[in-house]
Amino acid sequence: MKAYKKLVEKYERIHHLSHMQSIVYWDQQSMMPSGSSDARAKAMAEFGVIIHEASVDKEIALLLNDAMGENLNAIQKASLREMQKTYTSNTILPSDLVKAQSLAHSKCNHTWIEQRANNNWKGFEPRLNEVIKLSKEEARIRSEINGLSAYDSLLDLFEPGMKSQTLDGIFADVKTWLPELIQNIVEKQKSQTFIKPQGIFKIKAQKELGVKVMKHLGFDFNKGRIDISAHPFCGGVPEDVRLTTRYDENDFVQSLMGTIHETGHALYEQNLPQDLLALPVGQARSMGIHESQSLFFEMQMGRSGEFLKSIHPYIIESFGNDEALALDNLVKIYSKVEPSLIRVDADEVTYASHVILRYEIEKALINGQIQTSDIPDMWNDKMQEALGLNTKDNYKNACMQDVHWSEGLFGYFPSYTLGAMYAAQQFNTVKKVHPNINDSIANGDLSQIKSWLKENIWSNASIYSTDELMSKATGESLNPKYFKEHLENRYLFN
Amino acid sequence: MKAYKKLVEKYERIHHLSHMQSIVYWDQQSMMPSGSSDARAKAMAEFGVIIHEASVDKEIALLLNDAMGENLNAIQKASLREMQKTYTSNTILPSDLVKAQSLAHSKCNHTWIEQRANNNWKGFEPRLNEVIKLSKEEARIRSEINGLSAYDSLLDLFEPGMKSQTLDGIFADVKTWLPELIQNIVEKQKSQTFIKPQGIFKIKAQKELGVKVMKHLGFDFNKGRIDISAHPFCGGVPEDVRLTTRYDENDFVQSLMGTIHETGHALYEQNLPQDLLALPVGQARSMGIHESQSLFFEMQMGRSGEFLKSIHPYIIESFGNDEALALDNLVKIYSKVEPSLIRVDADEVTYASHVILRYEIEKALINGQIQTSDIPDMWNDKMQEALGLNTKDNYKNACMQDVHWSEGLFGYFPSYTLGAMYAAQQFNTVKKVHPNINDSIANGDLSQIKSWLKENIWSNASIYSTDELMSKATGESLNPKYFKEHLENRYLFN
Repeated sequence: MKAYKKLVEKYERIHHLSHMQSIVYWDQQSMMPSGSSDARAKAMAEFGVIIHEASVDKEIALLLNDAMGENLNAIQKASLREMQKTYTSNTILPSDLVKAQSLAHSKCNHTWIEQRANNNWKGFEPRLNEVIKLSKEEARIRSEINGLSAYDSLLDLFEPGMKSQTLDGIFADVKTWLPELIQNIVEKQKSQTFIKPQGIFKIKAQKELGVKVMKHLGFDFNKGRIDISAHPFCGGVPEDVRLTTRYDENDFVQSLMGTIHETGHALYEQNLPQDLLALPVGQARSMGIHESQSLFFEMQMGRSGEFLKSIHPYIIESFGNDEALALDNLVKIYSKVEPSLIRVDADEVTYASHVILRYEIEKALINGQIQTSDIPDMWNDKMQEALGLNTKDNYKNACMQDVHWSEGLFGYFPSYTLGAMYAAQQFNTVKKVHPNINDSIANGDLSQIKSWLKENIWSNASIYSTDELMSKATGESLNPKYFKEHLENRYLFN
Repeated sequence: MKAYKKLVEKYERIHHLSHMQSIVYWDQQSMMPSGSSDARAKAMAEFGVIIHEASVDKEIALLLNDAMGENLNAIQKASLREMQKTYTSNTILPSDLVKAQSLAHSKCNHTWIEQRANNNWKGFEPRLNEVIKLSKEEARIRSEINGLSAYDSLLDLFEPGMKSQTLDGIFADVKTWLPELIQNIVEKQKSQTFIKPQGIFKIKAQKELGVKVMKHLGFDFNKGRIDISAHPFCGGVPEDVRLTTRYDENDFVQSLMGTIHETGHALYEQNLPQDLLALPVGQARSMGIHESQSLFFEMQMGRSGEFLKSIHPYIIESFGNDEALALDNLVKIYSKVEPSLIRVDADEVTYASHVILRYEIEKALINGQIQTSDIPDMWNDKMQEALGLNTKDNYKNACMQDVHWSEGLFGYFPSYTLGAMYAAQQFNTVKKVHPNINDSIANGDLSQIKSWLKENIWSNASIYSTDELMSKATGESLNPKYFKEHLENRYLFN
């Protein structure tokens, strides 16, 4: 085990360096004054090179080879497999490209924050184009080695093992039933009225409510915190998880559910196996599985009448006992389905349309079928088709709404809908194992849910492949029917 | 200039890495949850090694040698001199020692925060002892090379060119007149009564007041921010200055002046020459000169009746028009002299006693004349002698009050009193150049002061030695008589 032990030391070092990077990234998004962005972009780029160099250290290749012949237990074998995969993925890219990407992402991100506020596509486009150019170059290099298509070679970074051929099939199926389902739900909900809560909901009170709910869900504030950023995310490191959210004084509803969503991500991170944290095998399985945890908490559980009942006293405590804050009214609000422009504000039914639209555009961009300048029109066309909404000249709430592409995250969006499907399948299993789970949730007892997730998802980190993980946890491979059933049960048959 | 240009690139890289380190350090002090300290300590230690390795890069030695023969202008020559000094200083220490120090400082710092709250010297002592052991090892290695005494070899890191022989002389002189001066002032002030402002002074209001005053002083919030930490400091990087302060709801007076103090540091950082920021020559001249800027703002100007008059409207705006907040009452409060235990809360007259006590203890520690376990008793003895105060069993407000030693900052404390002396000498010159300066201050016009400091101190960074800088700015070398005159004029003859 000499070689394997040396590998562990190498990856521990990388883990420490990534810690620095994650905290500084969090700072950039939530704390940094805007005049400092140039200096920060340069610092991050320089540091990106250092992490890259540590990840492509030639000694790792030799050690990986030597460790293959060592007597390893099952977890160590899985660990070695993930090290091998990570190393191969990291060594494909030349350090000049990594540095150029880091700088381009920092600059594009900063421009995105500024120009999104101005609805200025033209001011943003050149920065985004530079990012896309570099991502295409990355995809070209990766596909040369792994034999995947350009887009699939990026998709594989976020959802290992997933192919666009499979996604095309799943999404084609969704497109056969989703539009009609949306129509039927919208029709059904026409007869349901609810009262919109009227602000002002002070940010201080919203923060306090968010913290109470996070504690209820089990977030460990001794190893994490929550702050504000333009685009909410779950950052930091497993030992120090940094959530961000955003508040609107006129509406606490979205922000509260956003906090629950990010807390789902955070619980996964905080409950990864402590002794494996520094190693690739100790990290979250995939972006899709990560999203399944946020959507398990936000969608499967968070928007259910039972869960809302359990946190209802906190809401009353924060904002007073108002007719609009009555439990049944809140349940209606949280299950309202309505085609809209913004993905992060979308309900769980129309959400898949937002993802499929982005998937189609980014796949065409990376595969070279369209140009950066085609994005706004293509967005408008697809949005009209999917949800009947016009986005002409409205960049801010259309193709400039997400941070992902500014960060070079192509191949990431499908994870959201895969996550929704994984989550539905997981929750379906929990209900089978614990038939009275909804009563427990209503009574504020989340112990069964957390035990199940800890045992079946969190503690397994990347020990198994996604398919193995889901099969062990739920008895079968990904099966999108649970997602469809969940939507029908909650929104049509309820 | 080929070699010099390559050196510039090398130091730019180090500047970018230091940027990461400074931001993460700030986070550790002001944002990080306590349960994350172990993971953070490891990450910081790992990163400390990387910065160290970049600073001791052997190619720098070759380039420094080559650059000596190149045709450089005066600034480039000064730059090369500072690179040479920095490089020599950095290469003396083996990387194992640097890593051990980084880890020991992180751990000691964290223990300090915890155990200070518990007044637990015994819980803190082993961590501090480890830091001292490593600092003595550092001093031993440095003095072998530079021929200075153990303590002087550390003092030189903060106040280049300063020797303990000189300090012994200056402090011996201070000890001949300070006790009597304190006694006379305390006697004089017995007949002066003032009304202590009664809280609650809400933290939000204090923050807002602090920000107004920082803006009045010229702090650039586009390239910096202010937050809370246990021990206030001015951190971050010149392009993104991170001030911290602390608030007490029962007393806004100390915190406000603390903010002015840190803003003095910040203005120096924010006004260093932009084109030299990445280079050793572009950094602040010394800790003593740095402190002279904070004390220029806090003591020379900040506590004067004229300055208080200029910010008085802000104070009233924040806390209402109360008898205790009348201008003449505030002037009395801000010039109150009273022997007390806490250095950072001390008035400017008794402050020097706090520094001399620490100087004597740390010099004896590093020179091996006393042990870590001797600190509490020695502190008590010296505190009784200097200010007539007993600190037996009171570690929290005695030898555990400062963060410096936890961070391995031995040789730093003298900078405070040197800074007070430099500041008095600088302000004396400003008064000669602008005889009506006090009227300008009272009218809220700080343009003459800032122009003078920018031209004579800030923009010169480390281009000149401390002695040259002071001589060019004030017409003579450090002359402590201006400090004594200032204290007598403000507190006795006024």
